Amino acid sequence: MIVDCAAYVDGRRREGELSLERAGAAAKEPGAFVWVGVVEPSEAEFEAIGAVFGLHELAIEDAVRAHQRPKVEEYGETVHVVLKTARYVDPEEVIEVGEVSVFLAPGFIVTVRHGEADLAPVRQRLEQRRDLLAKGPGAVLYAIADHVVDRYMEAAHGFDEDVREVELQVFGEAQNPTQRIYKLEREVLEFQAASAPLEEALEELCRIETEVMPEGLHEYFRDVEDHLRRVTTRIENFRQLLDSALEANLTQVSMRQNEDMRKISAWVAIAVVPTMIGGIYGMNFEHMPELQWRYGYPTVLGVILTICLLLYWRFKRAGWL
Amino acid sequence: MIVDCAAYVDGRRREGELSLERAGAAAKEPGAFVWVGVVEPSEAEFEAIGAVFGLHELAIEDAVRAHQRPKVEEYGETVHVVLKTARYVDPEEVIEVGEVSVFLAPGFIVTVRHGEADLAPVRQRLEQRRDLLAKGPGAVLYAIADHVVDRYMEAAHGFDEDVREVELQVFGEAQNPTQRIYKLEREVLEFQAASAPLEEALEELCRIETEVMPEGLHEYFRDVEDHLRRVTTRIENFRQLLDSALEANLTQVSMRQNEDMRKISAWVAIAVVPTMIGGIYGMNFEHMPELQWRYGYPTVLGVILTICLLLYWRFKRAGWL
Amino acid sequence: MIVDCAAYVDGRRREGELSLERAGAAAKEPGAFVWVGVVEPSEAEFEAIGAVFGLHELAIEDAVRAHQRPKVEEYGETVHVVLKTARYVDPEEVIEVGEVSVFLAPGFIVTVRHGEADLAPVRQRLEQRRDLLAKGPGAVLYAIADHVVDRYMEAAHGFDEDVREVELQVFGEAQNPTQRIYKLEREVLEFQAASAPLEEALEELCRIETEVMPEGLHEYFRDVEDHLRRVTTRIENFRQLLDSALEANLTQVSMRQNEDMRKISAWVAIAVVPTMIGGIYGMNFEHMPELQWRYGYPTVLGVILTICLLLYWRFKRAGWL
Amino acid sequence: MIVDCAAYVDGRRREGELSLERAGAAAKEPGAFVWVGVVEPSEAEFEAIGAVFGLHELAIEDAVRAHQRPKVEEYGETVHVVLKTARYVDPEEVIEVGEVSVFLAPGFIVTVRHGEADLAPVRQRLEQRRDLLAKGPGAVLYAIADHVVDRYMEAAHGFDEDVREVELQVFGEAQNPTQRIYKLEREVLEFQAASAPLEEALEELCRIETEVMPEGLHEYFRDVEDHLRRVTTRIENFRQLLDSALEANLTQVSMRQNEDMRKISAWVAIAVVPTMIGGIYGMNFEHMPELQWRYGYPTVLGVILTICLLLYWRFKRAGWL
Amino acid sequence: MIVDCAAYVDGRRREGELSLERAGAAAKEPGAFVWVGVVEPSEAEFEAIGAVFGLHELAIEDAVRAHQRPKVEEYGETVHVVLKTARYVDPEEVIEVGEVSVFLAPGFIVTVRHGEADLAPVRQRLEQRRDLLAKGPGAVLYAIADHVVDRYMEAAHGFDEDVREVELQVFGEAQNPTQRIYKLEREVLEFQAASAPLEEALEELCRIETEVMPEGLHEYFRDVEDHLRRVTTRIENFRQLLDSALEANLTQVSMRQNEDMRKISAWVAIAVVPTMIGGIYGMNFEHMPELQWRYGYPTVLGVILTICLLLYWRFKRAGWL
Repeated sequence: MIVDCAAYVDGRRREGELSLERAGAAAKEPGAFVWVGVVEPSEAEFEAIGAVFGLHELAIEDAVRAHQRPKVEEYGETVHVVLKTARYVDPEEVIEVGEVSVFLAPGFIVTVRHGEADLAPVRQRLEQRRDLLAKGPGAVLYAIADHVVDRYMEAAHGFDEDVREVELQVFGEAQNPTQRIYKLEREVLEFQAASAPLEEALEELCRIETEVMPEGLHEYFRDVEDHLRRVTTRIENFRQLLDSALEANLTQVSMRQNEDMRKISAWVAIAVVPTMIGGIYGMNFEHMPELQWRYGYPTVLGVILTICLLLYWRFKRAGWL
Repeated sequence: MIVDCAAYVDGRRREGELSLERAGAAAKEPGAFVWVGVVEPSEAEFEAIGAVFGLHELAIEDAVRAHQRPKVEEYGETVHVVLKTARYVDPEEVIEVGEVSVFLAPGFIVTVRHGEADLAPVRQRLEQRRDLLAKGPGAVLYAIADHVVDRYMEAAHGFDEDVREVELQVFGEAQNPTQRIYKLEREVLEFQAASAPLEEALEELCRIETEVMPEGLHEYFRDVEDHLRRVTTRIENFRQLLDSALEANLTQVSMRQNEDMRKISAWVAIAVVPTMIGGIYGMNFEHMPELQWRYGYPTVLGVILTICLLLYWRFKRAGWL
Repeated sequence: MIVDCAAYVDGRRREGELSLERAGAAAKEPGAFVWVGVVEPSEAEFEAIGAVFGLHELAIEDAVRAHQRPKVEEYGETVHVVLKTARYVDPEEVIEVGEVSVFLAPGFIVTVRHGEADLAPVRQRLEQRRDLLAKGPGAVLYAIADHVVDRYMEAAHGFDEDVREVELQVFGEAQNPTQRIYKLEREVLEFQAASAPLEEALEELCRIETEVMPEGLHEYFRDVEDHLRRVTTRIENFRQLLDSALEANLTQVSMRQNEDMRKISAWVAIAVVPTMIGGIYGMNFEHMPELQWRYGYPTVLGVILTICLLLYWRFKRAGWL
Repeated sequence: MIVDCAAYVDGRRREGELSLERAGAAAKEPGAFVWVGVVEPSEAEFEAIGAVFGLHELAIEDAVRAHQRPKVEEYGETVHVVLKTARYVDPEEVIEVGEVSVFLAPGFIVTVRHGEADLAPVRQRLEQRRDLLAKGPGAVLYAIADHVVDRYMEAAHGFDEDVREVELQVFGEAQNPTQRIYKLEREVLEFQAASAPLEEALEELCRIETEVMPEGLHEYFRDVEDHLRRVTTRIENFRQLLDSALEANLTQVSMRQNEDMRKISAWVAIAVVPTMIGGIYGMNFEHMPELQWRYGYPTVLGVILTICLLLYWRFKRAGWL
Repeated sequence: MIVDCAAYVDGRRREGELSLERAGAAAKEPGAFVWVGVVEPSEAEFEAIGAVFGLHELAIEDAVRAHQRPKVEEYGETVHVVLKTARYVDPEEVIEVGEVSVFLAPGFIVTVRHGEADLAPVRQRLEQRRDLLAKGPGAVLYAIADHVVDRYMEAAHGFDEDVREVELQVFGEAQNPTQRIYKLEREVLEFQAASAPLEEALEELCRIETEVMPEGLHEYFRDVEDHLRRVTTRIENFRQLLDSALEANLTQVSMRQNEDMRKISAWVAIAVVPTMIGGIYGMNFEHMPELQWRYGYPTVLGVILTICLLLYWRFKRAGWL
């Protein structure tokens, strides 16, 4: 579905929406370019668009099917860029990955998005920056990449909070966040698979020399690449932290459970004392002088109590109770 | 065993099967090429084929023996490509690895397959795409590589499901999937050994400049390479996940067993109370005033019951029972 | 906020503070350069400075917002360098990260600092080394980088001490430094994220050939890079050590707790002996000859004592008590 | 000790053994080359050989002392190649490492072997392949490298079997193969240290352009390199598997032991019931109506039995007994 | 402190010690070179030496302060090489790291050593090899590097022995070498930090083309580099082994302790039997026919003994006692 299709001249949007045919014509006017925004197109739909702008068969297929890796590919004059968007859905602690395919040539830019990834705000913001828009389709690509990486930052921020929560659980009372740590690790890996290859793609974008990347744009892409590297370092650190958290968690869980066991055992050890003494004086020997003593019973009770209290005090001091 | 041998002119299959000798002749016609499909050939059989097309002694040996790594090698004008196929056999959770050796030169392509790897559907599908076939033997190689990588995708998908099953087991009740995790790790390593070197091989294919790789084909191979990298990233992630699962599993198993122990110990601790009190009043002292009391016995029973219930209630609250 | 703004001619500070406008003029005098020191500038403030010295829009944005990675970027004649400062706050065992952005061109150097990172001592020390100052803005950058890396060394030293403390805890008595190890690991990762990319940046500085880096300065930057590599090796080693400490700690914690359990169990096992014997002679059989024996009771007591002492002695010898 | 010394012309062995002096002369005949096979030479012995063929002092030292890494070094026209041989001694599960030093120049090849590594079969096999031998000393080097890597394959195969055995032990009954896993890991590391650097050496051999490596030989070395890479991948996988086996083993060992403990504890818990009830009815209260009941005793016995059976049944169902 | 200062002509030492001034003069004679050996110089002392030979300010600072990384740096014609020496002090199991700074130019070589690292034997040995000494200061550097790497070998050998000892402890009886393993790991990391960067430095030495490295010397440095790589591989393997030992140790420690617990529990379980039966026959029911039986008591004793022996036998068979 084409959601927006407009021509831009000198950084200004020409009034009104274009039909696809007129877009094809406008793409050939010197000094102008067309921006076609498409959302989850059917194969037929996108083949029509591909025919208008002369896109490569394989690129069309990739754009329709999604599930690509972030990459940059040149087909003659046209450059095909794939970016993965990422959103961190917090209550579920899940990374939602979308995809944006961009085709750009000197006269046009076609953006195809799949899944979560709204490009409307990018277009709005860009239309207010005439200086940037005047640099042509490359500037649009920059704005999209910048937007995507900014979203990564937000996602990484969401992660960060959950990782910190998990840490509190690991070192908190009586909890076992093993499953949560594991699930976060899974999401981190997915996030990494979506974001890390973009680094290479951006580097390649800075390297290739085409008409769509005029002089002053390389600085902009380098800036995005730089932001991306900050995110990927953070993601890598999440993985390291979750790995360590998994191991620290094992120590904590087993320690807490052992503490419980030790506590129970200590109480049982205390209770064993009266049982033992009771057992001795419960024997039926005929000649047990203590049994006839007047204060035998209270004395024994006193002894039992003393030993038990002593044990209690020692266990308490050792931190076992 | 030669399973299919045909000549192709302008992307169209020339009628009828060729004998090996006529295939050798057809390979020299300009604008035509011969595709010989061989399955697990004996040494003698393949030496005959090698003689017809002038294949290198070492390459012949490799093709007959199989057990090669994925690779690309140039012997003069002939390029020798080895691909490993992979199929995930689900109930057994085993990766079955096959091998396809491909020899291609401007006039011919010889495909040798070992183990599981049916190339017949590739040939059928390709014969319907005349435009591609017209690009010569390189296009056939592309079709095969594309098919192989698509099969990897399916295998990775099968893996994915089993990894998720294992995760449920790890965090589910009373199970110990250690062995299953370990076995999956073994299979992942085998899968990785089969698929990862292909990346390098495909890169080399895109780099080498020979007549069999005409202009427009590089894009196709780059596309396959791209799909492959998605698979290898996923496989790498499987390994990471299984590593973490192994560790999480240790925590879960030891935690569940400790829970059992704590439960048993807690019950024993409760039972120790009546034993202890029974021991005390079982002593045979002559002067134990309580023993003569009218309601001594029910009082003691009541005390025992109270303490036991209290303990039960506290253990329950602590989550130990 | 501009904290210091002065012109330097032949390595000597020209008297008095400059206004921003006059600084712009002084930057264009041959043989002189201007050093503007800015602290956490507002956007408006820094745009004014940027306008005077012709800084790039993106670089200005980066300098105001901070949160960049260490990097070197060339915008035409101007070089933009970002450095992260690090300070180890000991009682809290936390790495405090600040940022210094430096813009330098043949006629000026602008230093922007965020967070903890005092550059005043750098300026003071440098103003006493006229030979170095005479080499221009590049020498100032060197002095800053040298200062930053020296601070890293101090931070690494602080870390080192805490890592050693943690080791003593791991192998000491009755402690569980899991959380401390984990927290240190987190800080090490942050430290690494701040310092490691600087290596690449310094390498690039040694590579680029601009007027601001005159002949004799490369040696100085190589020296800083060298010091940096020593720090990064140490940081990497901290990570390795903390990883191992986490694992050693698991062994120690579980061993100490098991020792407690063994001790309690051994005592219970000793107490079980009299209970058992008491139980036997507490049976009410009519015909138990031992019960009538004159010395039955003391004999049994003796037997109990002997067995218990024997057990005690064996447990002691086995190191269980 | 010189074990064999012969001249080869046109791929054919010239009759009779040569003395060292005549070998030196033969090495200078055009179209011929000399192959000197030496086994663990003394320093004096090998210096004599070195003098005849003009070998470099350092290379001589290396060849005599052995304990080198696999490597390729050029000393002027002479190439010095060091290969490590490996044999897996199965009952001891030990990798036995030997060394072969090869010096080759257009007119001669000197092979020095240390430890286990019989080159006689290589010579025999090669003397039957006149076409290969005709390519000169490089072909001999190829035959040796091929032989060495084939031996690696066998060693890897032996390893594979033991790794599989260990896996059965890990997941089998009541065994603790920790030490065996650890020892295998040690051997894998030694195997890796011996074989992995050869990869780099072979690559260098394919790269260097000397007279001893005529046109058609590169394919042969590439083939060996390819086989080697298969082995090194497998060795790397062994390490991964043994790492995982060590961890899985920890889970299994601790699980089995915990199972034992749980079983014992469950039985103790069952035995605690009659003890507790016996304790209660063993109390000496004067007023315990149950004691006078006619069927008090059998009733209590019945109750005890019922509770014990119930517990038994529940524990059985929970898999604890 | 200058410990030795001599001039060498044609590989022969000129008689007598030189003063520093005359050394400066001798350094300028063609065909001669001066070797100044310095030990832990004060700043003033070394600045004097630096002034004579024209050393760079930064290099002087580095040489005085020590604590550098191994590196090679060119300051104009002078090359500055830093090497770290290592000695394994066995009873303490500690790596002692020293430093040797070498400055060499066509006419002189200055060696500065810090900490443990005696260069006197190097000088003695070298003065007996006139051929090598005749190659100038580069040969002296080679001799030092060779000596340093030989010492690494010895250190690695010492490590090896302790690692093997630790392994025996891990799999031996009743020991917990966690702390020792951890400490060895710390030392290995320090050893690695000292030795690994030298590899890169030596590679650079082989690459740079200066007058001090005449034609025939590269082979010598390549030889040293090769020895170094053997050491670094071994060190890396130590780390791997210690990692695995740490994990194996956890298994062994927890297994041994669990065995103790199981043993105690098994004995308690045996003791519970007479207690339980004693409890039953200790009940005070009026109607307990067994109590009146003539042989009731011995029968019960017999039953108790039988059950206990049965349990003992089963536990023994299961390996629990």
